[in-house]
Order: sequence, then C-alpha cells, then structure tokens
Amino acid sequence: MNPDTPPDIPDLADIHLARARIDDWARITPVLSDPGLNGKLACKLFCKCENLQRTGSFKFRGASNAVIKLREDGIEGDVATHSSGNHGAALALAATLDGRQAHVVMPENSVPMKIEAVRRNGGIVHFCAATSEAREEMLGKLVADGKIPVHPYDFADIIAGQGTAAIELFQEVPSLDMVITPLGGGGLVSGTAIAARTCGARVFAVEPEGAADTVASLQQGYRVNTWKPDTIADGLRAIVGVRNFALIQAEVTKVFTVSDVDIRRAMLLFWQELRMAIEPSSATVIAAISNHPEVFSGKKVGAIISGGNLDPGTWSTMVSEVA
Amino acid sequence: MNPDTPPDIPDLADIHLARARIDDWARITPVLSDPGLNGKLACKLFCKCENLQRTGSFKFRGASNAVIKLREDGIEGDVATHSSGNHGAALALAATLDGRQAHVVMPENSVPMKIEAVRRNGGIVHFCAATSEAREEMLGKLVADGKIPVHPYDFADIIAGQGTAAIELFQEVPSLDMVITPLGGGGLVSGTAIAARTCGARVFAVEPEGAADTVASLQQGYRVNTWKPDTIADGLRAIVGVRNFALIQAEVTKVFTVSDVDIRRAMLLFWQELRMAIEPSSATVIAAISNHPEVFSGKKVGAIISGGNLDPGTWSTMVSEVA
Repeated sequence: MNPDTPPDIPDLADIHLARARIDDWARITPVLSDPGLNGKLACKLFCKCENLQRTGSFKFRGASNAVIKLREDGIEGDVATHSSGNHGAALALAATLDGRQAHVVMPENSVPMKIEAVRRNGGIVHFCAATSEAREEMLGKLVADGKIPVHPYDFADIIAGQGTAAIELFQEVPSLDMVITPLGGGGLVSGTAIAARTCGARVFAVEPEGAADTVASLQQGYRVNTWKPDTIADGLRAIVGVRNFALIQAEVTKVFTVSDVDIRRAMLLFWQELRMAIEPSSATVIAAISNHPEVFSGKKVGAIISGGNLDPGTWSTMVSEVA
Repeated sequence: MNPDTPPDIPDLADIHLARARIDDWARITPVLSDPGLNGKLACKLFCKCENLQRTGSFKFRGASNAVIKLREDGIEGDVATHSSGNHGAALALAATLDGRQAHVVMPENSVPMKIEAVRRNGGIVHFCAATSEAREEMLGKLVADGKIPVHPYDFADIIAGQGTAAIELFQEVPSLDMVITPLGGGGLVSGTAIAARTCGARVFAVEPEGAADTVASLQQGYRVNTWKPDTIADGLRAIVGVRNFALIQAEVTKVFTVSDVDIRRAMLLFWQELRMAIEPSSATVIAAISNHPEVFSGKKVGAIISGGNLDPGTWSTMVSEVA
C-alpha cells in the first residue's frame, strides 16, 4: 500500500492482487475492434466486452474480489447490498460460489430481468421505495441483523475489482491514448483510473444528462449528493460515491454527458457494426466518442462496454425508435 | 495437395493457407465458455463466436479467402453469387475491400436486415423468385455477362475459408472431444471436418427439421436435391452441395435435426447465459446438445456459433414466445 494513499482507497497493487484473486471466477473478456465501427467513429476503438462477463456486467469483478477477500480475512456470514440490478446479480453469484447468501435491496421500479437475475444467481431480493433513503434504511436493517454490507461502488475492494477490466485491456492493447467508461456511482471509472497509472492513458467518463450529478459536483467543487435521476440508462442512476468522487477529481480528464437519444443511437450503431446488444449504460461511451471528434478523432481509444443486461423487448424498442 | 483428394475439394493444407490469406481481413473471434451454460447442458462447451465475425457471420472467412485468391491468381473483375443473406454481405465486403463490386442474387422473401447488410457493404442486390431455378437463372445471366461466380458453399475456396474458424478453435482449446456446427449448404461443416483431421475431434452437424435434406440424403445414400424448406433458420434453407455431401458422408459422425421450437428455446438460453443475441441458424447447435445428453454429456465440446444477423424485433419476438 502506498503510504500516500488512504487505507480505504486502493492503489495499483491492490488491483493486481484483485486480478489474481478473481482469476478462477471471472472471465477474461474479449477485446474487439471493428473496422466498420472505427470508420464511423473516426478513431481506433478497442472495446473491452464486459457485457460478456459472467452475470452480464463488469460488476462480477468487484463482487468476486470483495467476497473472496472476506474469505481470506476469515469473515463468515451472509452479505447484503443495494443495487439497481447488475451489482445485485454479481454479488448473488459471488456469494453462491462462496457458499454464502446475498440479500439485495432493490427499488420497486427495477428492470424485471435484473430482479430475475438476482434470484437466478441465488440472491434474496428485498424491495423498497425508489429513494435513496428507503434503500439505505432497508440495508441498515439487514446489517443490524448481522449481514455483511458490500457497497456497490464506494468501497475499496469493489473499486479494486472493477479496475481489473482495465488492467486486462492495457495488457492486451498496449499504448492506448485514452480509455473511457460509463459513470454511475463511479466504481468502474475509479478502478480504471488507478489501473491507468501503469500506462499513462488519459481517462474519460460519461454520464447520462439525466443523471449528471458528477458533472455538477465537478463544477461545484464538492459532491452534490441529491439528484432525481431521469434516464434510460438504469445502471447509471446512482449518486457518485465519496471515494469515487475524490479519485475522479484527481485523475479523470473529463466527464462527458450524453442524451438518452444519443444513447439509443449508440446502441443501434453498436448492434449494426458489432452485432452485440448492449444495455443503455454501456452505450454512453460510444455516444460520447461519436459526439466529441475533437477529443477522440484519430486516437487509439479503449472503451469499457460495461454490461448487456436488458429485456429483449426493451432493447428492440429502444433501437427501433431511432432506426 | 494430397494426391488422393480431388483438386476441387480442399485439404488441411488449404485451410492453413486460407488462414494465413485472410489474416488481415477476418477477425480471430473469441471463444467463450460459461459455467452457467455448461451446467444447463451438462457438458463443457466452448463457443466459437462467429456472430462476432465481421459482417456478423463465419461467411466472411470463405468470401475473403475466395476473393483474395482471385487477386493472387491475377483474375480481375466483379463477382456474383446467390445468397439468403450472410454470404451475400460477406462477399460484398470482401469485394469492396479488394476494389471489386459484388452482385448478389437474393430471394424476394429475404430477411430485410440481410438485404440492407449486402447494400451497406457495397453490394448490388438482384431480387428473384424464392426458387432455386429462378436463383440459378439470374446468377447464370450475371455470369454470362462476365461476372465471376463465387458459390456460397459448393466451392473449394469457400470450404477452405470456412474451415479456418475450426482451426482457430482447435488452437485455442486443445483436446476437444467433439465439434458441432449448423448445416445448410454444408460449407461450414465441410471446412470444419477437414480442420478436425488435425485433432481427432468427432464432427457433428445440425439441420432444422424443416430443412433436413442432408439427413434424408444420408438415409437414401444419395444427394436428395429437392426440398421445400420450412424453418425459422433462414440461413439453413439451402440444399447440401455436392462436394459438401461427399465430405459429410465420409467424415461427419452424425447429423441431428431440431425443431423450430427447440431453436427458439436455445436462442433464449444463449441470451440468458451468455448475453448474446444469435440468429436461429446458430442456435441449432445449442438445441442439439440440449436434446442429446447421451452424446454430449460430460464431454468437452466445441460449437461454432455461426452468426448473429437478425432484426432486433424478430429476435425479441422469437425468444419472448418461449420465455
């Protein structure tokens, strides 16, 4: 641990330790580059396909790292979290693999497929009202009842786990000029920023316009902790975490915003060129690259495609409307 | 060239030559194995994801090999073929990359997205009635007009190109017990069977019940060359080719048939476990493995996922109906 780093923010060594720790559980996802997509975006893009990660998103990396670390530390017992879905399913599978039970607090308006995914991976769903107060209250009860909390993004072991995707990307594609990730609570971009210390790639992130609390926070210079999210990118509705905001302020070059229409168009483009159905959160990075040729044109860009969990019918409707 | 092999059937060396030839054009597609899917199918499955190949199917391999070989042989001019779609789009892109034009004869009832894909890749579409006579007649006219025919499957350079997917699979996953591919005209399974001579994996193929001409041909002992196809697997409606049937008779262990309902269920299962939307033709292999535990259970199986080209709305409808 670097002595300059507070103990609850991971450093590069922690990400490498996490990478070794999750090796038996998480998949080394493929990195795809497509000449057609490169032509449309006027850059050389390398997509790290976490939509093909187990449980359908990068969240399985952080959840695995956190659960295996509990075991290493001799901490037994069931785990609990709140999640719009992807972290919940990921923690459910990680807990199941480790012989534990995961309790997942989910807002009543969660995507049905994400609710089902938590259950299919062995998790127990606890519904609450779609407010952060209701969510924290119910999680608080579970923790008071003895469950071990595993925060979805504002937690060192989670950040370290999420950073392993970028480590793999940098190993597979050396000399990237920049890397870009979606930004909700900030777990993925935090881990990515730490991982990027190895290679000097500049780090960018993207929020939906309807959940742009981090951009507001960067403008204000302090963490804006209230926001009423309104976006189709259901995975990015969270408020940025404390540790995450500190890392973003210090190490992220710029946070872009994109509209929901931009996101739908990017989902369609990704399907047309790469034949993968990705969730709206993932498509934000493609939308931002498309909107900002002044930043990305001619560059060698890594993009973390964060997840692919959405209902077939929803996906079809989203892309058909902009076709 | 092995002296025992007729000059118009490729051998293993031809597939290795093809692999080197298409190296700059075709993508080395990822091989994915998923514990959840393995659990459901009771085998250890390795999916060679040709749905992520350029133009969205393995067909780009054969088309690239055929077009680059024309260039090597000093043969100039535009190319022509008939295709329900995937070979057409693949040949269109290969021709465009080589500075040629591709003319593609397509039945009037082709999937709209596949028509669009031919055009987007620079090809010219010629519509004909949905009969093999009409198709051959129109292709004949194009050839009489000087275009170079590139048959979609009954052609040595195409078979050699399609075999490169299996070569890559065997290199990435040694010691497979068996490999399974969809079967329409037979280009993919022919190339795969030749490639499998390197490693001793048994080769299986799958036809939809509504286009089971090869199974009928194997039963009769000669090539049944009439069949009125009726299946959702639009990529597998062709009659098996002459060279292809000879190779299948000699080197394929068994050809299974699956129903359209089996195919839809397999599309849904693949989505649930691997988060990829695959076309009905591709899903036949998953359906056959699911239906035949007596063959596949406990085995290390390679499956070539042939393509991912279908309309979002069509895909959504197909999988929703069996959910």
